[in-house]
Amino acid sequence: MNVAIIVAGGIGRRMGAARAKPFLELCGEPVVIHTLRAFEACSAVDEIILVVHERERQEAMARLSSGDLAKVARVVVGGPERQDSVWNGLRHVDRAATELVIIHDGVRPLITPDQIAAVAEEARRSGAAILALPATDTIKEVEGNRVIKTLDRHRLYLVQTPQAFRAEIIISAHERARAEGRRATDDAALVEQAGFPVSIVGGSRINFKITWPEDLVIAEFLLKRVRP
Amino acid sequence: MNVAIIVAGGIGRRMGAARAKPFLELCGEPVVIHTLRAFEACSAVDEIILVVHERERQEAMARLSSGDLAKVARVVVGGPERQDSVWNGLRHVDRAATELVIIHDGVRPLITPDQIAAVAEEARRSGAAILALPATDTIKEVEGNRVIKTLDRHRLYLVQTPQAFRAEIIISAHERARAEGRRATDDAALVEQAGFPVSIVGGSRINFKITWPEDLVIAEFLLKRVRP
Repeated sequence: MNVAIIVAGGIGRRMGAARAKPFLELCGEPVVIHTLRAFEACSAVDEIILVVHERERQEAMARLSSGDLAKVARVVVGGPERQDSVWNGLRHVDRAATELVIIHDGVRPLITPDQIAAVAEEARRSGAAILALPATDTIKEVEGNRVIKTLDRHRLYLVQTPQAFRAEIIISAHERARAEGRRATDDAALVEQAGFPVSIVGGSRINFKITWPEDLVIAEFLLKRVRP
Repeated sequence: MNVAIIVAGGIGRRMGAARAKPFLELCGEPVVIHTLRAFEACSAVDEIILVVHERERQEAMARLSSGDLAKVARVVVGGPERQDSVWNGLRHVDRAATELVIIHDGVRPLITPDQIAAVAEEARRSGAAILALPATDTIKEVEGNRVIKTLDRHRLYLVQTPQAFRAEIIISAHERARAEGRRATDDAALVEQAGFPVSIVGGSRINFKITWPEDLVIAEFLLKRVRP
């Protein structure tokens, strides 16, 4: 069995919105519902665990009651940071029955079933796989509003989700990070720290994370094209 | 006087297109014409030098003959790499008469006159300024299709253009880089290497570089909203 964990517990300080980003409206529905539809439609996904902020738990349950997102097996409450939210999802994964865990940001609604399946396939082969895009902009380190350093762009990738892992690998990586008090901005980093290799699968510009107000406008346009 | 150099000499291997990216069609006109319009409309820009590939020189001249882009003073031919193309533009800048040089990628057509003016204003104050956005994705170093290292995203910025500099600073930085055979992916890096401070001005997600085929579709949608 393959289990997807959709992380939708973020607060969205950058949007300047009162609502959490995964619950902002996109084509008449919360962002995260569109994300869930892609996973529902992917044959590589058997079960979905949705992680939300406590405030949105009731709303999420109500939205899911219509039954068209039948793979959503649980709605669990997230923690203070993304890593805690993923952990709360992982705690509900049946270790013995689960082959792959596929983790995805709830605010990337333009993911496609094909991309999810490609990452899952590579994780089945190699143990750990993530979607990523080669950097096309120069990347610099900044302090305040002053440039400190220009990085060598060659070999730099912008990392997306989904990230898929053999269940054993991701659960033990999170356990170790918790025991040692380590933090990371993505799950693959914890797996790397635990010494496992992580493979790259080519991502898409369209699979961006809704972060800025203008992103919602772009996402709405693209969603209508991708899922008319 | 402030001079803008618009670099439109790229070949565009990533697009898989026969045409150079700056000359792909966007809302019925070449991408670079939309870019030029933003600079034409910006009161902080007095003169524009357009750098194109030799193949597109005739086409560019024909497009400009209608006269609505009156600030374009010269169309010069680029070099093998972006840095060479910028240098070919800089050679036509009148050092004595020019206060600021504002360098911009021809394939960022969604730049606004306000953003150009903001970067110019900061360069006037501090000597060197660039548009940049804080990284929202995790960034990793990759070799082949394997992750080598996860960078600390904190303090990393994705760099855009325009980049504006006092004329003395950018010309001497390019001269030094040429003399010493140094290469960089953006002009600010050469200025940093020459020991000058570079300031950041907040960019916009919309000001992206047209790189992937889906970018043209997004740019067309946004352009119609921004310049109806």
